[in-house]
Amino acid sequence: MAEKKEKSTEKGLSEKKENFSEWYSQIIERAEIVDTRLEMKGFIVVRPWGTLIIEKMYDFYEEELQKKNHKPVIMPSVISEANLKKESDHVQGFTPEVFWLKTEKGEDKLALRPTSETLFTPMFKLWIRSHRDLPLKLYQRGSVFRLDTKATRPLIRGREFQWIESHNAFATKKQAENQVQEDIGITETIMHQKFGIPFLPLKRPTWDKFAGAEYTIGSDVIMPDGKLIQQPSTHLMGQKFSKAFDAKFKDEKGNEDYLWTTAYGPAISRILVSVISTHGDDKGLVLPFCISPIQIIIVPIYTKENKEKIIAYAKRIKNKFKKYRVEIDERDFYTPGWKFNEWELKGVPFRIEIGEKELKKDNLTLFLRDDRKKELLSLRNINKLDKYFEEFDNRLKKNAEKILKNSIINCKTKEEIKKVIKEGKIAKTNFCSIEKEGIKCAEYVEKEINADIRGILATKKEISSGNCVICNKPAKEIVYIGRSY
Amino acid sequence: MAEKKEKSTEKGLSEKKENFSEWYSQIIERAEIVDTRLEMKGFIVVRPWGTLIIEKMYDFYEEELQKKNHKPVIMPSVISEANLKKESDHVQGFTPEVFWLKTEKGEDKLALRPTSETLFTPMFKLWIRSHRDLPLKLYQRGSVFRLDTKATRPLIRGREFQWIESHNAFATKKQAENQVQEDIGITETIMHQKFGIPFLPLKRPTWDKFAGAEYTIGSDVIMPDGKLIQQPSTHLMGQKFSKAFDAKFKDEKGNEDYLWTTAYGPAISRILVSVISTHGDDKGLVLPFCISPIQIIIVPIYTKENKEKIIAYAKRIKNKFKKYRVEIDERDFYTPGWKFNEWELKGVPFRIEIGEKELKKDNLTLFLRDDRKKELLSLRNINKLDKYFEEFDNRLKKNAEKILKNSIINCKTKEEIKKVIKEGKIAKTNFCSIEKEGIKCAEYVEKEINADIRGILATKKEISSGNCVICNKPAKEIVYIGRSY
Repeated sequence: MAEKKEKSTEKGLSEKKENFSEWYSQIIERAEIVDTRLEMKGFIVVRPWGTLIIEKMYDFYEEELQKKNHKPVIMPSVISEANLKKESDHVQGFTPEVFWLKTEKGEDKLALRPTSETLFTPMFKLWIRSHRDLPLKLYQRGSVFRLDTKATRPLIRGREFQWIESHNAFATKKQAENQVQEDIGITETIMHQKFGIPFLPLKRPTWDKFAGAEYTIGSDVIMPDGKLIQQPSTHLMGQKFSKAFDAKFKDEKGNEDYLWTTAYGPAISRILVSVISTHGDDKGLVLPFCISPIQIIIVPIYTKENKEKIIAYAKRIKNKFKKYRVEIDERDFYTPGWKFNEWELKGVPFRIEIGEKELKKDNLTLFLRDDRKKELLSLRNINKLDKYFEEFDNRLKKNAEKILKNSIINCKTKEEIKKVIKEGKIAKTNFCSIEKEGIKCAEYVEKEINADIRGILATKKEISSGNCVICNKPAKEIVYIGRSY
Repeated sequence: MAEKKEKSTEKGLSEKKENFSEWYSQIIERAEIVDTRLEMKGFIVVRPWGTLIIEKMYDFYEEELQKKNHKPVIMPSVISEANLKKESDHVQGFTPEVFWLKTEKGEDKLALRPTSETLFTPMFKLWIRSHRDLPLKLYQRGSVFRLDTKATRPLIRGREFQWIESHNAFATKKQAENQVQEDIGITETIMHQKFGIPFLPLKRPTWDKFAGAEYTIGSDVIMPDGKLIQQPSTHLMGQKFSKAFDAKFKDEKGNEDYLWTTAYGPAISRILVSVISTHGDDKGLVLPFCISPIQIIIVPIYTKENKEKIIAYAKRIKNKFKKYRVEIDERDFYTPGWKFNEWELKGVPFRIEIGEKELKKDNLTLFLRDDRKKELLSLRNINKLDKYFEEFDNRLKKNAEKILKNSIINCKTKEEIKKVIKEGKIAKTNFCSIEKEGIKCAEYVEKEINADIRGILATKKEISSGNCVICNKPAKEIVYIGRSY
């Protein structure tokens, strides 16, 4: 591995601003996030550094879901053909993308799960009898599989990806809709507040909702090339799946009704795409402190003569940070400069350099990955660092928020939208409707402007005034338009 | 769910001693560990209670693996036909059991991974160049898939199961063999010392090793019916896979050699079988304190009048156990007696009962799940409980150790072995050889005694004296014979 890394950092990364796509392809391989060399279309290996980040991200999401009273389950990775095909819209949406398994003769046909509504709903039918069993809020972590025939890209679009699926059942529509809002809140608490990735919670146009849902709310995140990537989406399934599976409950008065269900799906491997793309720079990854597998890397600078002393000093410093993930890079066969590059490439938020100079005066040199500033600190003031650590993630978040905010441009004409989209930004504009009647205007936007109607803000009603910029009929909504992944 | 549970506990469980098989089938459904009603042969749903236990078990194993310098990766769930078929012994062993996927025309055939040697070894080839990159110790958590055509049983034998796979590469055979011993140590530290499941680490006869391994060491655990179940096994692959995949490294002197590899596979869902079967009793599960999703359940006994006071008191007690997983069962629609049964069935180690009587004198009634003793304690002496919690797991472990120890019977004749096996015990005896030349004697044991040669102790050399009990030729080994799952 040594040889390879040296070559990479020597060669340098593409510039993120100049050629984001190339930068992304390079950084995920060089920072050892993934390896695509198994050569199976849409299937990748996530390497230890990437896996450790993903594990931390899972931890944050699972903790939050459990705090909100969701319980974990482990569903099979397969679905019987009979169940998969029970809800008709769902079938149409997903069947073309399904991997089928060859089973034994005489056995039911099995599909690898592309999503798990048709596993959870039959269990709801079995587990829920009365209002006492409600709400039932579950989730699972694991892979799903989609036989995507389009071009795949590592972590962005794959045939297998790692996510969490939360499926929930309620007694009333109101409770189910509250869950949808709570899900947006989880995205806000974790993806935005923890990982520093701001998003637009957008109710999707009816032609763009999840196959089988009453409505879908996606979380749109802006990428450095100006395109939007869909992050966790949450769906009101209403009674569509419960009717297909005949999943009912008895209310307080003994009356039967179909369950109201919702689903929420943070794709952890995809959120990692936004973490990499939003915070990274031309030197490599910049990982939020809260999810970096190593939060502080100590690079001791020593000779054969003073090695023992310096390493002892490094260990003393490490011991002062017991609540953090700290490592000392003691590898003799790499130079300090090589190690600096390596850990910058991998995005470790803080580096502590210590050599003879620092040791003599009980000092340490602190390097901050994001603004790449160095500072000489006394060991006596080491408590000061707790504040630095906190500020680090806050700084990443504020920068990302500024980018998103500056990318949203109010537009009053088609020409303005065209210009905004060309500049890699998001157009906000009056639009006739995200229901069926708006589909023609959406098609115009797709063909003529090469962009999509992404939807309307789901957390706050934005009141439209004036007419649709496309068809000039009265505008029912204010929509966000952008190019998308 | 309410109705169902009430019926179950009324009906009562089968007696574990009388009919273990039925007891097992009942308890895994009634304690809400699994649900098999999706009706796909070999695929089950693990319910929240079961999943929470499995998650805790994963945590223990992953922490220990990371402590021993293993790093996690996420491998694809699929393997290309070309890679799967590279190692010839491996192909023969696994190909009949593989689920094949239907992919797009012109694309490579893909198999669902039955085990992941053929995913890890090609990556070793790419990631390892020199001795500097060694050892490389990795693991992944996830599912594997086997198209088992035999009778499947929930958690014991399934077509999909949850495990950890650790794959490791070394520069020398000695280092690889040390890893195999370290793996046995991990089974000891976690499965035995934490979960209270003692085992026999047995080097398997050559006809019973993993397909592609030089040798296999299994961990045999005794079940209440006297049969042995194989728990984590570890394999010296030697250079078989590295040769098949041409995975080499350069040593200090610049000479090339093939990697030495090992694999270790704790199947978490299967270890749960032993936890359930070993510790459970006629009232339900008995979960080790360290993995129980709820460690202490507080059941408040109240009327409408004093509910507020009693619940407040329950919360005061809960606050005293912040480092433990404690819950208060506040559900109005169940009686205290129903709740007692419910939490005993689910195996919660400690129950605290509080009512008017306890409240008045700042007392609590403590119920211990394993010996079902009750004790009145003063809130002032609550610190005493830390010791109780520790002793609980120790007690489960000691009981299990006694059972295993008493089950191993030294045998000097075929007749003795027959008798021991009939009694549901393990025969320890002189045997000619676990290499090829012993296969005829093994076949005799299988046919005439309906039992298997499970292997020889792998952690300590037991010296044989005398002749093989079967063929009467000089005995090279002392083997353990038992019936098996």
